[in-house]
Amino acid sequence: MRPESVRTVACVGAGVIGGGWVAHFLARGFDVTAWDPAPDTEERLHRLVEVAWPALEQLGLAPGASLDRLTVAPTLAQAVGDADFVQESAPEVLELKLDLLADLDAAVADGVVIASSTSGYPMTQMQQRCATPERLVVGHPFNPPYLVPLVEVAGGERTARKKVEWAADFYRSVGKEVITLGAEVPGFVANRLQEALWREALHMVASGEASVAQIDLAITAGPGLRWAFMGPCLTFHLAGGEGGMAHMLDHFAPALASPWTRLAAPELTGELRQRMVDGTRQEAAGRSFAELVADRDRHLIAVMQALAAVRGAASGVTPTAASGVEAAGPGA
Amino acid sequence: MRPESVRTVACVGAGVIGGGWVAHFLARGFDVTAWDPAPDTEERLHRLVEVAWPALEQLGLAPGASLDRLTVAPTLAQAVGDADFVQESAPEVLELKLDLLADLDAAVADGVVIASSTSGYPMTQMQQRCATPERLVVGHPFNPPYLVPLVEVAGGERTARKKVEWAADFYRSVGKEVITLGAEVPGFVANRLQEALWREALHMVASGEASVAQIDLAITAGPGLRWAFMGPCLTFHLAGGEGGMAHMLDHFAPALASPWTRLAAPELTGELRQRMVDGTRQEAAGRSFAELVADRDRHLIAVMQALAAVRGAASGVTPTAASGVEAAGPGA
Repeated sequence: MRPESVRTVACVGAGVIGGGWVAHFLARGFDVTAWDPAPDTEERLHRLVEVAWPALEQLGLAPGASLDRLTVAPTLAQAVGDADFVQESAPEVLELKLDLLADLDAAVADGVVIASSTSGYPMTQMQQRCATPERLVVGHPFNPPYLVPLVEVAGGERTARKKVEWAADFYRSVGKEVITLGAEVPGFVANRLQEALWREALHMVASGEASVAQIDLAITAGPGLRWAFMGPCLTFHLAGGEGGMAHMLDHFAPALASPWTRLAAPELTGELRQRMVDGTRQEAAGRSFAELVADRDRHLIAVMQALAAVRGAASGVTPTAASGVEAAGPGA
Repeated sequence: MRPESVRTVACVGAGVIGGGWVAHFLARGFDVTAWDPAPDTEERLHRLVEVAWPALEQLGLAPGASLDRLTVAPTLAQAVGDADFVQESAPEVLELKLDLLADLDAAVADGVVIASSTSGYPMTQMQQRCATPERLVVGHPFNPPYLVPLVEVAGGERTARKKVEWAADFYRSVGKEVITLGAEVPGFVANRLQEALWREALHMVASGEASVAQIDLAITAGPGLRWAFMGPCLTFHLAGGEGGMAHMLDHFAPALASPWTRLAAPELTGELRQRMVDGTRQEAAGRSFAELVADRDRHLIAVMQALAAVRGAASGVTPTAASGVEAAGPGA
């Protein structure tokens, strides 16, 4: 089956992530079947989807998309029997995942891809008890899956390469931004980056260096605004001025030795330097420093104005100084 | 002088950060005097400010704001002699900062606050050669200072507490979001968080676990979208569902031991747990889980639609699948 021909998606697990996937696939116009061992699954899923639906309506539903196309099945086998694609979002407990994926593998039609929302287990570990492990992949979303585009796709040692590619194509066809991982690295990419920041935050709170509110403000009023549209590498490429990433690395290399976080830096070898320089040059895609600055500012203003508008609407007043985007003169 | 009475700001240093401060203060309607030892300072500052100006016009200039109110002075003393506030943004070299801040301290009128844009040196170290160190503070901005609201303010051991408070009030009066640090921690708060993420990114590129493009996409299509308006702590509070931060910490405590980053986690003591729970409860400010979800989704949609509009305008087409916000049904 081609990814574009999928009609029915089965979602297994009715927690926040499972429910988010249900909302996403319903909004994209699919028939969705769902299952969870909890007795209140139907009620819980409807509540989760109804909370998400206004946002999805605002973004625009696919033709035919409807809440009525959700069927909560009484058994796992009934939920997945007719599925063209299966998204598993059970709790993050390895033993549970091992058994559940084996059960799914037995119940799902031949060749249909089964993706796990696991936020960290390598598929090689999870597919051990499956009879046909070649169609098992990781498809790790970010919360909420009905809005945040990122999905990290990875296979295990026994996964067929073409199934990994099929899953990536399928997610892209439903509006997702996909990273296909070459290596099975614990936590994948985004969670590793997020976890490094999170652990440093916990260290700072534990030592009394910063409060919870200061940590959150440090991100939302600072680098977080840029990260909504420009990743850390391209951000530092710009920090290097006209000299870009190469200048940044050469100039700030000593800072990597400074105790600015508890995370020790890697040795800045010539090879690592080159990878960073080549990678950011590709991302810059021929844009000059001035063009990148203009691009950044355009996006930054759009984000700040959009956030100010939401805050203004919520508070019933026009954007205030707290939004950081209004003008104020001396003595104003 | 009250913070609101400041009329003339002196900016020392004409690099990307110094130039960004010049643009910010001009846009807010101040007279700005500037100095840098480089021979092309005037030309360079005008170029930097002109690049920033369209963005600042779009956001709205303060009454009387004008590019013509920038004066590039031939000497440091002339630049700062009449200043009501001084922002130093020299290169990040300790020996240079030590001498420059001592020279500034000698040239600036009694009592006027001198703030350093240093991205990491503690003021205790930098103020050593100053005759009146009590008015020296750190005022660390994020790039570009004319758009990103965050400023981290900290004093050194010999800084007067009231000067720290004055600086924080002054920055707030010109539209900044201020974090006043209690402790002199290397890298302050935002850079420590950013640096932890950055070092993990460098490790991943060095080991071949991810490419530069994958790291940037992992942030911009994933957690970065949320971080533009919701910090990491409140994000994880939501990840805990109805149970919030307490449930998240209790449920995911074992994950802190997992090798999801090279940064070792702190011990999750009862005290740390309580600080995280109390801090996020304060941030949630009485909003229920459902209300927080609705808030998050409203902001997330605003950010995504704003970014899609900018991208659409730039490419001359309507937002595409790459924006992740359009609807697409099966077979579409």
